[in-house]
Amino acid sequence: MDDCIFCKIVRGEIPSSKIYEDDDVMVFLDIMPMMKGHTLVIPKTHVRNIFEAREESLAKLITAIKKTCRAVKEAVNADGINVIQSNGKAAAQIVEHLHFHIVPRKEGDRIKFEVPRDQYAEGEMDNYRDQISKAFET
Amino acid sequence: MDDCIFCKIVRGEIPSSKIYEDDDVMVFLDIMPMMKGHTLVIPKTHVRNIFEAREESLAKLITAIKKTCRAVKEAVNADGINVIQSNGKAAAQIVEHLHFHIVPRKEGDRIKFEVPRDQYAEGEMDNYRDQISKAFET
Repeated sequence: MDDCIFCKIVRGEIPSSKIYEDDDVMVFLDIMPMMKGHTLVIPKTHVRNIFEAREESLAKLITAIKKTCRAVKEAVNADGINVIQSNGKAAAQIVEHLHFHIVPRKEGDRIKFEVPRDQYAEGEMDNYRDQISKAFET
Repeated sequence: MDDCIFCKIVRGEIPSSKIYEDDDVMVFLDIMPMMKGHTLVIPKTHVRNIFEAREESLAKLITAIKKTCRAVKEAVNADGINVIQSNGKAAAQIVEHLHFHIVPRKEGDRIKFEVPRDQYAEGEMDNYRDQISKAFET
């Protein structure tokens, strides 16, 4: 992908603060961190989102994600870690190359992910369960 | 874990809107959805967070996460999907049993994850990279 910024980082055409790299995975600092130490984990092969990623690739990514969570927590002495992954513009995905955000958190920091919760009407939850189950099995 | 609400769901002691279950993984609707169709993917074996999860378990989870993303997107006709996983109270983890949120998104919905971005001082990014790299390798 000639124009993809993360592919350019993988190819070394754009500099990055690289934490880790192997044949499949690259880990580097986000240049616009939600919190300092905010790190990205990506597959080196271009896929746009989780839907396009292969199982083997995802297994390698989740191993790197776990290691990155541990490393970020330790290095910045975080109280907690959020893992966030966005698919599609509606989900606030900006770079269209699959990436997982590893965000260190501290007690009382300025990040607020809380959103007002929705509520199911009576019977509605069963319909959602049935629809999603059907889609899951196909 | 006698008192864990997700372990009770796994054991069938608390009812749930179950989407999928196998030997390792369970998928069910969140009862307080950020958006209707908000689904949780958990390991059946109790671990508190990603730090305690084994690689093999995470590989099985990420496969189920991908399938759940696809199923939720299709079933609720979502424009996008967020995958969110929280470790520790500071990261807004409520139930202390590892779980991944699969949240359907629609263009212009009421969820706002955007947070003001922080900024590194000169040279500071290199320090963070070095510290996290060191922790990653150990």
